[in-house]
Amino acid sequence: MVFIRAEVEVRPTEDVNKVLKALKNILLVNNVKVVDIGRGYKMIVSEENSITTLLKMYELIRRQRILDTARNVMIKNSRGDILNLRLNKQAAYQGIVSFVDADDESHLGSITITIVSQKLDEIIDWLAPRTSRGRPLWERDIPKDA
Amino acid sequence: MVFIRAEVEVRPTEDVNKVLKALKNILLVNNVKVVDIGRGYKMIVSEENSITTLLKMYELIRRQRILDTARNVMIKNSRGDILNLRLNKQAAYQGIVSFVDADDESHLGSITITIVSQKLDEIIDWLAPRTSRGRPLWERDIPKDA
Repeated sequence: MVFIRAEVEVRPTEDVNKVLKALKNILLVNNVKVVDIGRGYKMIVSEENSITTLLKMYELIRRQRILDTARNVMIKNSRGDILNLRLNKQAAYQGIVSFVDADDESHLGSITITIVSQKLDEIIDWLAPRTSRGRPLWERDIPKDA
Repeated sequence: MVFIRAEVEVRPTEDVNKVLKALKNILLVNNVKVVDIGRGYKMIVSEENSITTLLKMYELIRRQRILDTARNVMIKNSRGDILNLRLNKQAAYQGIVSFVDADDESHLGSITITIVSQKLDEIIDWLAPRTSRGRPLWERDIPKDA
């Protein structure tokens, strides 16, 4: 069982469809809602229960050759069953995975992804395997019952 | 002679017309161009030569009762003939003047206004007069040949 929640803020000057596109460039989301949070701000929230939600990120991490970075970020940002990731929204709109630090100035404008699973280690090993000189030491099948 | 230049970034997920509206909520601009600066980012640039460009800001500062703040910010950010102001873009979209510090996280998303005049003191005295308990000590006519 995996639970994947994504959140991204839509600022007043933003186009909700462009922000939605940014999210969909990174995650395969089906259950999306747009919540009005006041003062012209909205929040796009997606909650999914399938590991396949992460397939786009899986591909992008490989295409961009950032396996080492991705693995480090994922291990650093996981606690027990919970992994929190922040992705740059503008890069996502361009179809690029760019991890953002929590204390970075741009994190207010980021896509926040929370992954909850008892098999988080398997998910990370699948998404971003350890490498040697940038080449993955293994490529796992998609975790079936994660 | 006054020269007023305004710049505001349009991020990939933003709607250029909404950002333009944010600018126009604050300044009476006529000469606006939208410049493509790459990677999906644009810059809206306006250059004006009339003090009337500032009439909206003049009104908003009074309506919001922020004369003291405005005067302090303007005096702090003027050097010789040049005054640099940064305004929060999202607040501007809501029709609100909100000054942003240069070192604030949100300044990347701000409207930057540069005012150049040999009569900068007169312009500031007109825009944001000194107050006593919030009430202006004077209200000047609009500087004619500033």
